[in-house]
Amino acid sequence: MSEAPRSSTALLMEQYFDRLWPIMRSITGEGVRQTHDILAELLPLERTEVPSGTSVFDWTVPEEWEVREAWLQGPDGRRIADIRDNTLHLVNYSCGFQGTLSLEALQPHLHSIPERPHAIPYVTSYYARDWGFCIPHAVRMALQPGQYTVHIDARHFAGSMTMSQAVLPGQTDREVLFSTYTCHPSMANNELSGPLVAAFLYRELAAMPCRRYTYRFHFGPETIGAIAYLSRLGTHFREKLDAGLVLTCIGGDVPFTCKRSRQGNALVDRIIACLLRERGAEHVMRDFWPGGSDERQYCSPGFDLPVGVLCRAVFGEYPEYHTSDDDKSAVSFTAMAEAVELCRDVVQALEANRVYVRTNPHCEPFLSRYDLHDTIGAQRSKDVAKKTLQWLLNLADGGHDLVSMAERSGLPLAEFRIQAQRAEQAGLIKLAEVQ
Amino acid sequence: MSEAPRSSTALLMEQYFDRLWPIMRSITGEGVRQTHDILAELLPLERTEVPSGTSVFDWTVPEEWEVREAWLQGPDGRRIADIRDNTLHLVNYSCGFQGTLSLEALQPHLHSIPERPHAIPYVTSYYARDWGFCIPHAVRMALQPGQYTVHIDARHFAGSMTMSQAVLPGQTDREVLFSTYTCHPSMANNELSGPLVAAFLYRELAAMPCRRYTYRFHFGPETIGAIAYLSRLGTHFREKLDAGLVLTCIGGDVPFTCKRSRQGNALVDRIIACLLRERGAEHVMRDFWPGGSDERQYCSPGFDLPVGVLCRAVFGEYPEYHTSDDDKSAVSFTAMAEAVELCRDVVQALEANRVYVRTNPHCEPFLSRYDLHDTIGAQRSKDVAKKTLQWLLNLADGGHDLVSMAERSGLPLAEFRIQAQRAEQAGLIKLAEVQ
Amino acid sequence: MSEAPRSSTALLMEQYFDRLWPIMRSITGEGVRQTHDILAELLPLERTEVPSGTSVFDWTVPEEWEVREAWLQGPDGRRIADIRDNTLHLVNYSCGFQGTLSLEALQPHLHSIPERPHAIPYVTSYYARDWGFCIPHAVRMALQPGQYTVHIDARHFAGSMTMSQAVLPGQTDREVLFSTYTCHPSMANNELSGPLVAAFLYRELAAMPCRRYTYRFHFGPETIGAIAYLSRLGTHFREKLDAGLVLTCIGGDVPFTCKRSRQGNALVDRIIACLLRERGAEHVMRDFWPGGSDERQYCSPGFDLPVGVLCRAVFGEYPEYHTSDDDKSAVSFTAMAEAVELCRDVVQALEANRVYVRTNPHCEPFLSRYDLHDTIGAQRSKDVAKKTLQWLLNLADGGHDLVSMAERSGLPLAEFRIQAQRAEQAGLIKLAEVQ
Repeated sequence: MSEAPRSSTALLMEQYFDRLWPIMRSITGEGVRQTHDILAELLPLERTEVPSGTSVFDWTVPEEWEVREAWLQGPDGRRIADIRDNTLHLVNYSCGFQGTLSLEALQPHLHSIPERPHAIPYVTSYYARDWGFCIPHAVRMALQPGQYTVHIDARHFAGSMTMSQAVLPGQTDREVLFSTYTCHPSMANNELSGPLVAAFLYRELAAMPCRRYTYRFHFGPETIGAIAYLSRLGTHFREKLDAGLVLTCIGGDVPFTCKRSRQGNALVDRIIACLLRERGAEHVMRDFWPGGSDERQYCSPGFDLPVGVLCRAVFGEYPEYHTSDDDKSAVSFTAMAEAVELCRDVVQALEANRVYVRTNPHCEPFLSRYDLHDTIGAQRSKDVAKKTLQWLLNLADGGHDLVSMAERSGLPLAEFRIQAQRAEQAGLIKLAEVQ
Repeated sequence: MSEAPRSSTALLMEQYFDRLWPIMRSITGEGVRQTHDILAELLPLERTEVPSGTSVFDWTVPEEWEVREAWLQGPDGRRIADIRDNTLHLVNYSCGFQGTLSLEALQPHLHSIPERPHAIPYVTSYYARDWGFCIPHAVRMALQPGQYTVHIDARHFAGSMTMSQAVLPGQTDREVLFSTYTCHPSMANNELSGPLVAAFLYRELAAMPCRRYTYRFHFGPETIGAIAYLSRLGTHFREKLDAGLVLTCIGGDVPFTCKRSRQGNALVDRIIACLLRERGAEHVMRDFWPGGSDERQYCSPGFDLPVGVLCRAVFGEYPEYHTSDDDKSAVSFTAMAEAVELCRDVVQALEANRVYVRTNPHCEPFLSRYDLHDTIGAQRSKDVAKKTLQWLLNLADGGHDLVSMAERSGLPLAEFRIQAQRAEQAGLIKLAEVQ
Repeated sequence: MSEAPRSSTALLMEQYFDRLWPIMRSITGEGVRQTHDILAELLPLERTEVPSGTSVFDWTVPEEWEVREAWLQGPDGRRIADIRDNTLHLVNYSCGFQGTLSLEALQPHLHSIPERPHAIPYVTSYYARDWGFCIPHAVRMALQPGQYTVHIDARHFAGSMTMSQAVLPGQTDREVLFSTYTCHPSMANNELSGPLVAAFLYRELAAMPCRRYTYRFHFGPETIGAIAYLSRLGTHFREKLDAGLVLTCIGGDVPFTCKRSRQGNALVDRIIACLLRERGAEHVMRDFWPGGSDERQYCSPGFDLPVGVLCRAVFGEYPEYHTSDDDKSAVSFTAMAEAVELCRDVVQALEANRVYVRTNPHCEPFLSRYDLHDTIGAQRSKDVAKKTLQWLLNLADGGHDLVSMAERSGLPLAEFRIQAQRAEQAGLIKLAEVQ
C-alpha cells in the first residue's frame, strides 16, 4: 500500500506494530501479557488480573491458556502447519493433543475457506473444548491420504485474564472512554490497529495543557474483557460517562465509518458526524445494530452508555477479515495516525463543547469595538470565521452547545471553538450557569 | 383472471360469493337480511334491527326499502333494463313509479357513463327521493324516440335497518375491530370482498388457541351503519379499542394499500407497515384523508379511533369502480384468501406485541448456556433468527414493544414473536410490569 | 423589463418610486426625512427623531450627516464623479474634504468593481471616518496621472436619526410587524422596493373591514434603526408580537424567497410556506441564518421574535446588488404589487387562523341538511371546496388551527378560511375556548 511520507507517529506506530505482530495472543495467557507489556511503554497501564472462574454478570472468566508448540505433520514428514510460521494455524484456545490420525479422522479438525483458498482462517474455540488447525484451502485440497501427526503442547489452567486501563485525570469527574481489545493473534487491521491508535491517542491527550474530562483507556480481550470491565465500572459509567468509543478495524486506508451508539444521537455520535462531514471526504454514519464488538456490552440495555464505534472497514464486511490476509499490507500507518488525529479532534470538540449565553443578548453587539474582525488569512477562511462568529452570537442563548451550533450552521466545530474563545475573552459571551 | 391452485379458503369463498352475488342489497331491506343470513353460516352474527327514524348523532335511520320488480321497456316492447338481469339497473333506493314517458321526459331518469359505454353505473339516491335506471351508455345512445314504459314496484316504509356483529371474546377487555359493509348490490370488489374476507377472518381467529384481545366484526350499510354502530359503541370504543381496520375493495389481484388511521401512527398502522414491508412486494401506505369509507366515522374528531383501512385497489381510483364491470372477473379468491392471511398476521402481531425487559440487563447473556442457537433451517433464516434475538435482547428495556423492535431493526415481526417466546422460556426476558 | 398591463397599485408605486429615487439617503440626515415625508402621503407615519449619541443596547446612534456638494475633477478639468449625477458616486457618510491629490494619493479613496466594470458600487463608511468616491472600474482604469481635485462639502454633527412607524389598531393587542429600511440611496430593488411594498400594504390593511391584530409598520435605517426600534419596543414585542416580516429586495421579477425566522417554524413561516406552495410557482423557503438584514436584530437571542424575511432575489446574491445597476430597470412594479398581495394574503391567513371545534364531533354531519354543497363553480373548484370542508370537519378538534389543516391536507389556506366561515355559520363548528 503506497503512502505519503509518514509522520513520526506513523513511523513509531510501525515499530510497535512489528514487535506486537508475532505474539500468540488469545483471550487469556502470556501472549496478552507480553502485548500489554509492550503497550505499557507507550502509556501507563494499570493491569488487572481477573482470576479464572470469576463470575461477571452472566459470564464466567475462562481458564488461562498456554501453548508452547503446535504443529501438524503429513504422511511425508513435512510440516503442514506450525504456529511458529503463523499464529493463526492453531485454532485459538485449542486444547492439547498429541497423536496420529488418518486424513479422514483429521478432517473435522481442519478449517479452511474455499472462497479464499490461499488464506489461513482465524478460528477460535473459547467456550467449547476442541482442537484444530487452520490452513489454506489450497493446501487442504492437496492433502494425501495417510497418517498425520498432531502435536499440540497446550493446556488450560486456573490462572487469570489480563486487562489494563490507563486513566488520564481531568478537572472534573465526567468521563470519556476509549476501549479496544488485545485478544486477536497476528492480524493487522483486526486487531493491532485499535490498540495502537488508542495508545498513541493517549499520548496526544496527555500532552494537552488541561482537560475538563477524565479519560479512560481500556485494553482487554473482546467481549469477556468488556464484560469484566463493566462488572467493575458499569455503575460508575452509568453515572459519569459522557462519551465513549470502541476503536477497532481502524487501520485500513479506506474511509472512516462511525457506528452510532444505541442512543443514536449521543454527543459522541453528533461530534463524529460533524467532524466527518467537515472533512468532506467519503465516510459513513451507521445506525447502531446489536452485533459487532464491545459496544454490544457498553450498549446493553442495563447500561445503554453513549459509546459508539470508530472504524474504517467494518468488521465482517471486508474480504481479508479474520484471515491471514489481514496482515501488514492491509493497513496503513498513515491511516492510523489520521485516526489518532480524528480521535483527538473528537476530544477537543468534547472539551470545548460548552453552553454559552450572550452577556447582552439584545441585538447584535457593535463588533467594531471588540477587535473581532479577522485581518489575517485567506478570504474564505475569514468568511468562515465571520459566519461562525455570527452563528455563535446568535445561538448563545443558553440552549445550544457548540455542537448543536455546528450542526445547525454546517460550519466547522473547530471554528466554533476558536470564535467562542475570542468572544468569551471579549466579554460578549459567558458560560451558561447550568452546564 | 388466471390464478394459482386455490386454497380451500379460496374455493369456499367463491361458493359464498356466488350465492351472495345476485341479491338486491341496499341501505336497508330484505336483501341485506338475506345477505346477513348467508354470512351467518360462517360466523355467529348477532343481528340488530335499528328502527327507521331512529336518531343517530346528526343522522336519521332511513326507511326500509322494498322492491319487487323494476323494468324499463322501449317503444318496440323490448326490455331495456330489468333488475332480474342486473340489480344495478335500478337506481338504488328508487321510489316506485309506473307510467309511460317520451324519451325526452325519460332522459333525466337515465344514468350512464360516456367514458365506459358498455358498463352499467351504480347509482344511489338515499337522501333525495327519485327514481331512475342505469344503463350502458351505448344502449342509451341507441334509444329511439317514442313512448317508454316504466315499471318500478318499490316502496319505502317504516321498518328497520339491519346490522350485525360477531364478538370473539379474549382474555382481556381490550378490543380490536374489523368493519365492513353490506349495502352494495351486485358488485364484486366493492363490495362482496370486504364481507367475505371479514367472515373468513373470523374463522381463523376463532381457531386460535387463545386470544388476549376481544375481536368485534361489524357488518352494516356504509356510513349510516357505522354511525349507528358508533352511537351504540363509540364511547365504549374510545375506552377499549386498541386497533381497527375497515376492510373494503380487498378482492382485486393488485398490491395491498393501507390507509393509515387519522392518528397516523397507531399500532395498527405500524404493524401493517411492517408486514407489508416484510412481504417485499409492492404496496402502498397512504396517509389518512377524510374522504373514503367508514373510517370517516371511526376517525371523526369526537372518536379519533385507531382505525385504518386495508384495501387493494383504492375506492374511486380503479376503472371498474361502481360499475357493472366490478364483477367476478375483477376479483381473485386467492387474493381474498391472502387478505385473510394478512389480517391474521396483523392479529398475531397485535397479540404478541408485548413490552419485555431483560431479567439481567447488564451485558449480553452467555447464550451458549441457553440452547438458543438455531441448529436447523437455511443459513439465511438462521442469520435472521440470530440477528432478531440480538435485537430483542438489546431492546428489551421496558421501553420497546416488539413492533418498535421490528421497525428499528427492519427484521420480521413474526421472527420477534418466535424469539421472544424462546427468550422468555429461557428466562432471559420477562414481561415489563406496566403494559 | 417587459410587463403585463399594470394595476393601479403598480402605476401609483412607480410615481412614488420616481420621486424617491434621486434622494441622497443615508443612515441619518435630511434625505431620510424627505423620504419619510413622501411616504407619509401614503400612510400616517409617526416620526421619531433619536438624538445622536443615544445608547441603544451595545450601539450608539451616529451623528447626523449633511452633504451639499461632492465631486471629483480630473487633471483635464472634467468631472469624473458628481453626486448630482448619481448619489452612489460618494462613499455614503463620507466626511468633508477639499483638496488636490495625485492619482496615486487618490487611489486608496476610489472604489470600483473589476468584475462589473461599468457599474458604480455602493460603499458606506458609517463607523470609520473616511471619504471616497465610487466610480465604474472602466473609468478608473482610464484615469491619467496628474492632479485631481476633490470637493466634498459634507459634515457630521449632533443631530438625530429619523425613524417612523404607522400603527393600524385591531380588536386585540396581539401584534404583527412589517419592517423595512430607508437608508439606501438611489437603488431600486435594494432598497426602494421594501418601503414601497410596506406603504402600499398598509393601505390594503387599512381598508379591511375589521382586524383582530394590531399592525405596526417600521421604517428606519438598516441595523441601527432596528436596534433603536427594539430598544423602545423589544420588550413589548416579546410579549405581544405574533408575527413579523422584514421586507427587502422584493422588487425584482424573480420568484419569492422566504427566509424563515430563527424559530424556524413560527406561524408566519408556516403561512408563507403554505401560500407559496399554493401559488405553484417556483419559490424558495430558506432556513434562518444570522447574516442578512434587520432580522439579525429581531432574531437576536434576547428577542428571538417570530420575524422572517420576504424577498425575491436574495440580498448579496444577485449580480446588480449594491451597484448602480440596481436601478429602475432591475425592478417590476407589477412584481411589487404582487408582493403587496402576498403580504395581504399572509395577513388574511393570520386573521383567519383560529382553532375550531365541532359542535357535534361524533361522526360526520348530515351535510345535506346544511346547504353546504357547492352548486356553483367549475368541477375542480367544487372538488377543492368539498375536500377542504371534509378536512375542516375532521380536524376541528380543538388541536388544529387552519394553518395546520392546510399543511396536513395540502389544500389552500384561503379555502379553509371560506369553509370555516360557512361551517361556523351553519353551526357545525365553533371557536375553541382557549385560543
